[in-house]
Amino acid sequence: MSRVSYVNGRYYPHKEVNVHVEDRGYQFADGVYEVILVKNRLLVDEIPHFDRLERSLEAIEIACPMKRQALKMVLEEVIDRNKFKDGLVYIQITRGVARRDHGFPKTSKPTLVITARPLKIADKSTENKGAKVITLPDIRWKRCDIKSVSLLPNVLGKQAARTAGAQEAWQYDEEGFITEGTSTNAWILDHHDNLITRYLDQAILSGVTRLTVINLAENEGIKVVERPFSIDDVKNCKEAFFTSSTSFLTPVTQIDDTVIGDGSPGEFTKKLLLSYMNYINERPQNELMR
Amino acid sequence: MSRVSYVNGRYYPHKEVNVHVEDRGYQFADGVYEVILVKNRLLVDEIPHFDRLERSLEAIEIACPMKRQALKMVLEEVIDRNKFKDGLVYIQITRGVARRDHGFPKTSKPTLVITARPLKIADKSTENKGAKVITLPDIRWKRCDIKSVSLLPNVLGKQAARTAGAQEAWQYDEEGFITEGTSTNAWILDHHDNLITRYLDQAILSGVTRLTVINLAENEGIKVVERPFSIDDVKNCKEAFFTSSTSFLTPVTQIDDTVIGDGSPGEFTKKLLLSYMNYINERPQNELMR
Repeated sequence: MSRVSYVNGRYYPHKEVNVHVEDRGYQFADGVYEVILVKNRLLVDEIPHFDRLERSLEAIEIACPMKRQALKMVLEEVIDRNKFKDGLVYIQITRGVARRDHGFPKTSKPTLVITARPLKIADKSTENKGAKVITLPDIRWKRCDIKSVSLLPNVLGKQAARTAGAQEAWQYDEEGFITEGTSTNAWILDHHDNLITRYLDQAILSGVTRLTVINLAENEGIKVVERPFSIDDVKNCKEAFFTSSTSFLTPVTQIDDTVIGDGSPGEFTKKLLLSYMNYINERPQNELMR
Repeated sequence: MSRVSYVNGRYYPHKEVNVHVEDRGYQFADGVYEVILVKNRLLVDEIPHFDRLERSLEAIEIACPMKRQALKMVLEEVIDRNKFKDGLVYIQITRGVARRDHGFPKTSKPTLVITARPLKIADKSTENKGAKVITLPDIRWKRCDIKSVSLLPNVLGKQAARTAGAQEAWQYDEEGFITEGTSTNAWILDHHDNLITRYLDQAILSGVTRLTVINLAENEGIKVVERPFSIDDVKNCKEAFFTSSTSFLTPVTQIDDTVIGDGSPGEFTKKLLLSYMNYINERPQNELMR
């Protein structure tokens, strides 16, 4: 399969899709992005993704280069040209090309880039033996609610996890509370079967999968508590997992040197993952729950 | 004049100089940069710039794509092809192109981009009537000693200054101490004629002009104190200014609503600016002071 990508109104073979070196995304990380799961050629949870994209753009004062319906048509065209059934689309919008200068340029046309690639979705649900997570101080900026491409600390954190033989790093704030993973939201189940995830503030991203899982859990009668939890809370929890649009629910079986539960994916987590897999399989464009 | 830029071994007309959308600089801000002043076609303070570039690369584990002497030859070629006498060169090195994934790719070749543009240096020294500065909470990440392209908070801070009719924003930490400007280092002169600038830690960039000005001041018998100072210290200071490779020494005449001194550039600042102008005019490649 040869990949096709989109930039500012044109479709290109992926290998030839370029931006100018003075695109502010390249020199200043002056842009935002979204990654949306595609199941059976359809966008999953498109509405909260579009909502968040618009919030991110507004927060850094970039005009949205096209209306939501037009953007959706371009995404569908990219999915079509990439000829996959299941995969993901990546949308990046930057402030555009301008002579290098920190402040906003007087005139610049935002750059819209869309790429796509296939993803084997079955792997995620059936082959997941649980992940090891390390903990790290959260050194990121104070507006992690904006989904910007200013991701160097996330890159360094994810790499630190890999180097330690782990799949993810959970970052903790100055009070020792977990904020989130480097590309995922963090969750624990306590011994009273409360499902706990940090509330939304400027320290974390409002995860789309996080929101879907809250809804799914509540529909199943699970009590969801949005509050900060500490590293110790994780070490003493019953189950733990992380969520994102591309990792779904991934069970956490070890944090730093502490094994969680019996070291295998928890029952609650597996049940919720199954609910999530049913959700994306049966209701790929579900807008009713919002 | 038509600009010429360089990417990975080739020179291009500036308008045609592109990078791939999956360059990690574009998607992850996974790269570092330097801006070096060019005076009479020669690099100013090249050694501390190269030193810092190598430190930044090492901090985020990107291999330097070429040796210092080779990089210098490319910079000189870029300056030559751009046909200016005074200007600046911009060097950016990223981790290169790879399929999008937060952790370091197993194989990727770093991208080296060099651009250049002319700069009217006389303006800086003779037409400077002083700048207004605003103060803002420092919301950046905790490794500002790395000169990375993860600059979105700096962009937002600089723009907040512009919107307020100011030229720069001085950021303050959680204890109310100034860290630095969004693209400059911050300085005050107290009423005992001590020249004060924050010490180097992970909260600020080790400015090359900062270092040169420390040396110039000490050579002139001015006492330099490297310590944090508060917003109140600025409001009650005798003089204030900021430094960078492209703004040199810029006198600060107002901070937020407080006029500094009599509202015109201070005598010490003007004298130091003159010393700095002499330094770049007479000793463009001075390596003796290091």
